[in-house]
Amino acid sequence: MRLSQFHLATVKEVPADAEIASHRLMLRAGMIRRLASGLYTWSPLGLRVLRKVENIVREEMNRAGAIEMLMPSIQPKELWEETGRWEKFGGQLLKIKDRKQQEFCYGPTHEEVVTDFARNELKSYKQLPVNFYQIQTKFRDEIRPRFGVMRAREFLMKDAYSFHLTQESLAETYAAMYQAYVRIFTRLGLTFRAVQADTGAIGGNASHEFQVLADSGEDAIAFSDGSDYAANLEKAEALPPTLARPAAGAALQRVDTPTQKTIGDVAAFLQVSPRQCVKTLLVRGSDGLVALCLRGDHEINEVKAGKLAELPGESILASEEEILAACGTRPGFIGPVGLPDSIPLIVDRDAAVLADFVCGGNADGTHWTGANWDRDARIGRTADLRNVVEGDLSPDGKGVLHIARGIEVGHVFQLGQKYAQALDATVIDDQGKAQLMTMGCYGIGVSRIVAAAIEQRHDDAGILWPEAMAPWRVAVCVINPKNASAAVNEAAEALYQSLNRRGIETVLDDRGLRPGGMFADMELIGIPHRVVVSERGLAAGTLEYRAREESESRALSEDELFALLG
Amino acid sequence: MRLSQFHLATVKEVPADAEIASHRLMLRAGMIRRLASGLYTWSPLGLRVLRKVENIVREEMNRAGAIEMLMPSIQPKELWEETGRWEKFGGQLLKIKDRKQQEFCYGPTHEEVVTDFARNELKSYKQLPVNFYQIQTKFRDEIRPRFGVMRAREFLMKDAYSFHLTQESLAETYAAMYQAYVRIFTRLGLTFRAVQADTGAIGGNASHEFQVLADSGEDAIAFSDGSDYAANLEKAEALPPTLARPAAGAALQRVDTPTQKTIGDVAAFLQVSPRQCVKTLLVRGSDGLVALCLRGDHEINEVKAGKLAELPGESILASEEEILAACGTRPGFIGPVGLPDSIPLIVDRDAAVLADFVCGGNADGTHWTGANWDRDARIGRTADLRNVVEGDLSPDGKGVLHIARGIEVGHVFQLGQKYAQALDATVIDDQGKAQLMTMGCYGIGVSRIVAAAIEQRHDDAGILWPEAMAPWRVAVCVINPKNASAAVNEAAEALYQSLNRRGIETVLDDRGLRPGGMFADMELIGIPHRVVVSERGLAAGTLEYRAREESESRALSEDELFALLG
Repeated sequence: MRLSQFHLATVKEVPADAEIASHRLMLRAGMIRRLASGLYTWSPLGLRVLRKVENIVREEMNRAGAIEMLMPSIQPKELWEETGRWEKFGGQLLKIKDRKQQEFCYGPTHEEVVTDFARNELKSYKQLPVNFYQIQTKFRDEIRPRFGVMRAREFLMKDAYSFHLTQESLAETYAAMYQAYVRIFTRLGLTFRAVQADTGAIGGNASHEFQVLADSGEDAIAFSDGSDYAANLEKAEALPPTLARPAAGAALQRVDTPTQKTIGDVAAFLQVSPRQCVKTLLVRGSDGLVALCLRGDHEINEVKAGKLAELPGESILASEEEILAACGTRPGFIGPVGLPDSIPLIVDRDAAVLADFVCGGNADGTHWTGANWDRDARIGRTADLRNVVEGDLSPDGKGVLHIARGIEVGHVFQLGQKYAQALDATVIDDQGKAQLMTMGCYGIGVSRIVAAAIEQRHDDAGILWPEAMAPWRVAVCVINPKNASAAVNEAAEALYQSLNRRGIETVLDDRGLRPGGMFADMELIGIPHRVVVSERGLAAGTLEYRAREESESRALSEDELFALLG
Repeated sequence: MRLSQFHLATVKEVPADAEIASHRLMLRAGMIRRLASGLYTWSPLGLRVLRKVENIVREEMNRAGAIEMLMPSIQPKELWEETGRWEKFGGQLLKIKDRKQQEFCYGPTHEEVVTDFARNELKSYKQLPVNFYQIQTKFRDEIRPRFGVMRAREFLMKDAYSFHLTQESLAETYAAMYQAYVRIFTRLGLTFRAVQADTGAIGGNASHEFQVLADSGEDAIAFSDGSDYAANLEKAEALPPTLARPAAGAALQRVDTPTQKTIGDVAAFLQVSPRQCVKTLLVRGSDGLVALCLRGDHEINEVKAGKLAELPGESILASEEEILAACGTRPGFIGPVGLPDSIPLIVDRDAAVLADFVCGGNADGTHWTGANWDRDARIGRTADLRNVVEGDLSPDGKGVLHIARGIEVGHVFQLGQKYAQALDATVIDDQGKAQLMTMGCYGIGVSRIVAAAIEQRHDDAGILWPEAMAPWRVAVCVINPKNASAAVNEAAEALYQSLNRRGIETVLDDRGLRPGGMFADMELIGIPHRVVVSERGLAAGTLEYRAREESESRALSEDELFALLG
């Protein structure tokens, strides 16, 4: 492509509400333009990148035996009523009435439509397993769209749905999809982790998220340095402590902590480590308040807490009023010693092996020191209640955990029979009996990957595309082409054509910009390789080459350049 | 592709409301499945064909210098209010309220969005001309969706929009798009005509429709057998007659025609040709009724009539009551002889050269014979009011016209400044002054092409795909593979692989069906070439080849097959 024949429109200023790097850089590079809240036009430059991602996803889905199809974006209400999601899906479902007042929605996902397709198309177990996918525009009416295409309302998604007679067959396709996803994100050139994910309210048996690592990621991920264990923080198990609880050594003593309410304040005031403190949270149980105790340096894991039998499926902190009414003291001074017997007590396994610890005094402005389980406080039962932290042992016994932040770009999920049951999607088995199908679903946020890649790979000058995602791999630049000699222009043209002939996607910057503006544009839009053709270089028989990730140019012969670009 | 790894689901029965061949055959072949009124899922088989069309369209658009981008499907009301189309577009515009009660529509077309993009992106005449296009899902809330994907509500469209500083530049891009469309439909292997189209209410200067010829087409097309002249019937000019009006020979005479009201009835009753009759239509003018006279064998062209200065922009027949009030007689007996002077009379040029003609008597149950202009009736003014007919001279003076039916699959249009003006889309010219941009737009109904091709090319057994649109070019069939010898199965596998290696897209029918069912499926889904590998053929060193369009098989050697398939 000659840039003079393309539409490149980089901009200097971006709106103040572009909070994250990818949003700012996509606007500055002119990859996207905002049409309305959460709605973006992909410019020619942006679309080139989007299509690269789309094509790699398609190739690997095909290689894994999935079959592409295309479902409508507009879906009838009746199907969503069959699964109960017309009401349950919530405000993200964009509901629409047509001219005849029939109700529809703009599909945020396609379980209903694909299961309806399957119940009509699939009659016999001989047609199974089958894995249908599409790459298609979806809409979720986010209450607060932001971060550009990272959390847009209209977005491009690859969604696949597999159908099976048995759980074993589902597990096979699930594994194949997992491997396909590994190939996709590897080919895209991204640093990612496949993490065990909580299956949450959707139910189902197994689920992995594919997370692109980036400091700005919304999700925290725990991964081992000694194995390929990786899990969402909400899912990662904290192993039980290996050491038993020491014997009590100190005497229980009440101390005044008139203004110290946080663990940090109390520990500093008493000159102990937060590790030596117990913090107590009161949450709403299914049958009155429940107390949860953790070590002072640990954080509650709300997903784990929500699964406790004593809780109603979620973990909600009690209000100050509730705490006052139940314990006679304010939050900040609650502790296991002297806690009313009516309140069930559940202790994190790490907090349960403390001895001589500090905890709230169950009276305003006081704490206990030298507290010990059993001697001073009933311990109730123990459980894994906390988030894992950097340095915890990996649950698989290999290595220690590190914590990173990630952006979810893919999700594989063993759905089971939830949708097949709701829509009565059956096939005839080899005994001639109707059997509900078992399903898996596999999503990739195609447009989100573009933003996630930028979050992971950028610097002050702009984007650092992996080669597979770059709009072009190479930019051939001519300094001041209108004043350059014919020889320079011809050499640039020849190089441009020669690279493209070798299958190396190359753009010729023939716009006639000054070097400063031209180089800034090529860095901003993240072209991995830049080659400058100049009089001086031509005389010396060299090209001025610079990799986007390097700070210095180097002189290369044409053969060296071809060798470097493969 | 091995069919055992694909999802092919042909069906025997189709719904009674599938009225046209393409709708029936797409359902029978399992290319599409109805989700709701005007909403269709494209099965894997259907999508393969859709993508072939899409790819050819994309390649030729790129070759013609257009630049691909992607705009949202959901568009804000505010932009449509700027052009006035929020109200004017009518019921086809699917209006949507989001969770914040903001109003949007599902784009039926993208003039507003692309012109908004252009007014933001394009600052200088140096950025012009530029031609942006997208291939994207659109929605038109048809009041009566029908004919499957031919007139669906959700459909795939290629829409392009070009921006220019001058009309000359627009004319150049328009010509380039016209040529690109010719290449697209030629490559697709369709018989088509590029026809001059009426620019209608949209205004603008020039417009061509691309029509795929098919007997079931909704549009009538006039084309010359002596040149490449082709026009929509509504647009095609009827040349003035070459012969002057003969002198009057007969006397005016009133005859009773008590029950003969139509031209056919009257001509038969009086034993004259309809060509010797004048029929008179009363229509509503801007200022009272207007009479239009045509030769009895000609049909009124409502577009031409609507453009008469005496009419209010459209041609609406007067009601029986209006006619009775104005003329004292009923429709069927109106004529120019004795017509009240207060009614303006406009005569088609062919009717104006008649002498001694038959016409309505302006009294119930009577006609005149031997009527003549000037002597018996004022002639008013003459005009081209009629549809051209088979055998008319071509307006370009070369050859005679034939009439065919077509399906509109593409449209190129010189829009002018309508949208640029409404949205104030300007660039700075070389004098530093803001100038409104001039626009063209160029649409192709990608999904409709699939149906149009089937309308043009099918037989009783199924679809006859052109090679470029076929899901696969070749089907390799094995008779009863489970009982066939290993040698037969290996030969089929080798042939399948060898064809694909040569870049000839081939499907292996390894489903194990009986020959009858297998051949019927391959004919129904329209695979252009079928090759059967059998014991007998293997022994003779031949393959049993049959072209989809031929009724007999023939024995070919492998080399002959490769040569035939190019």
